[in-house]
Order: sequence, then C-alpha cells, then structure tokens
Amino acid sequence: MIRRIHHINFIVKDLDKALLTYRVMFGEPVAGAEVLPRRGVKLARFKIGETWLILVQPLGEDGVPAQYLKQHGEGFFLLSCQVDDVSKAAGKISNSGIGVLDSQPRQGLDDWQVMDLNADDLFGVNFQLVESAD
Amino acid sequence: MIRRIHHINFIVKDLDKALLTYRVMFGEPVAGAEVLPRRGVKLARFKIGETWLILVQPLGEDGVPAQYLKQHGEGFFLLSCQVDDVSKAAGKISNSGIGVLDSQPRQGLDDWQVMDLNADDLFGVNFQLVESAD
Repeated sequence: MIRRIHHINFIVKDLDKALLTYRVMFGEPVAGAEVLPRRGVKLARFKIGETWLILVQPLGEDGVPAQYLKQHGEGFFLLSCQVDDVSKAAGKISNSGIGVLDSQPRQGLDDWQVMDLNADDLFGVNFQLVESAD
Repeated sequence: MIRRIHHINFIVKDLDKALLTYRVMFGEPVAGAEVLPRRGVKLARFKIGETWLILVQPLGEDGVPAQYLKQHGEGFFLLSCQVDDVSKAAGKISNSGIGVLDSQPRQGLDDWQVMDLNADDLFGVNFQLVESAD
C-alpha cells in the first residue's frame, strides 16, 4: 500500500537559523523559503534521494504545527507515506482500527493531497498519507 | 554528501504489540524480530521504497535507546543518512560546528557503520550518518 517515504517534516522555531546548519548537511533547499498560509507556516525543503526533508516554522500561535512546537519543542514532527489513492488507503487503515484525523484529503504543498493518522494509535508517531504525482 | 534516508528508527515499549498495528500499514517485517545485544534492543524492520523503517524496543534500562524511551516516551528516535565514507563525512560535519558523538564508527545492523550527530546542534533531531553497501 505504501510506495515510499514521501516527506519528513521537522519543526523549527527559526527557519533562517536552522537553514544555516542544515545547508552543511543537505546543500541548498530546493525552492528557497515557501509560505503555506492555510497551515500557518513557512518552510524550506530538501530532496534527499526519493524523500523530501522539510523544515517547518510556525508563523503564529494557531494551527497544528504551532501547537506541536508548544507541546514538544523543536524536532521531528511527521512522516508522510505515499499511496496511490489517499482516500482509499485511509479507508482501509481506518477499518483496521487506526484513527484517521481528516474526514477528507486536505491540500498540502504542490499537488499533495494529505490525510493525517492518529499518533495515539501508532505509538506516538505522526503518520500521514499523501497522494501526489511526484 | 547525503545519498538517501537510509533508515528511520522509532522507539516502542512492546515490539510485538506495535507490529500488530504496523503490519496494517507496512505488511510483514523483513527479517522477523532481531536482537542487537550491544545496543540493548530488539527490533523489526520494514523496507519502504529505499528507506528502512525500524521499530526498536529497549530490552533493559541501559543504553541510549532505553534512556530515550525514559525521557521522551514512544515515537521518533533517529534518522540515519547514507554517505559514501562515514568517517570522512563526520569529519567534514564536525569541522562545520555540528557535534559528532562517536569518535569512531560503530557497528549497526548488517554491515552498517554508523556515527551519531548531536541533536542539540540540529534543532532537536537525532541524525546519524551511515556507511553501508545497501
């Protein structure tokens, strides 16, 4: 069902500061800094092999990333797995007793259609399903 | 410098219980349960695209994984990045001001030669470098 690790998100307080260090490891981010207003964040992403590594800075107090930063501090935020059909995969997973937090897919970056799973059912890990052409 | 996300480790309290759920998402683990005595853990791994996803259960109170579980609870533990030459990569990273916790490579699973980086220098993420034929 899962094709690949599509992206991994880390939460940082200060994107510019984090980039100074992450450039040492991963070179230049692919598209510079981007803003995703409906999520209340700015971000930068690196392509590592077949996986996007994304640094996410919350821009205010609202939204899931901001709440996560408040509760957990900086660090790992979520791991998104690519599937062919995100609604179908979420239905199958839900039927197996793993909670799906979104009732329908929401729009991520680019063409990404994402649905979040319940970390409480997955031993503390924020998993996400994503459908995307790339 | 980084070729791919080689493996991602999650810490769980009870591997058998976690596997019941993770099988829904990822199918059967590749080699069943394995034990890595020098790390004080048992584990199971899935291959997701080009990346290993590894569930790690500490077997006692000692060792880094056990300490991590105690401090942080279950969830994301570390992200390991494949490089061609782990000592050379660690040297370069260290020269850029990111701390390297191991003075020389240590043996992981299979032929993996790993060196851990200081999460305090990487905004709360446990990164690792790994040299491996696959």
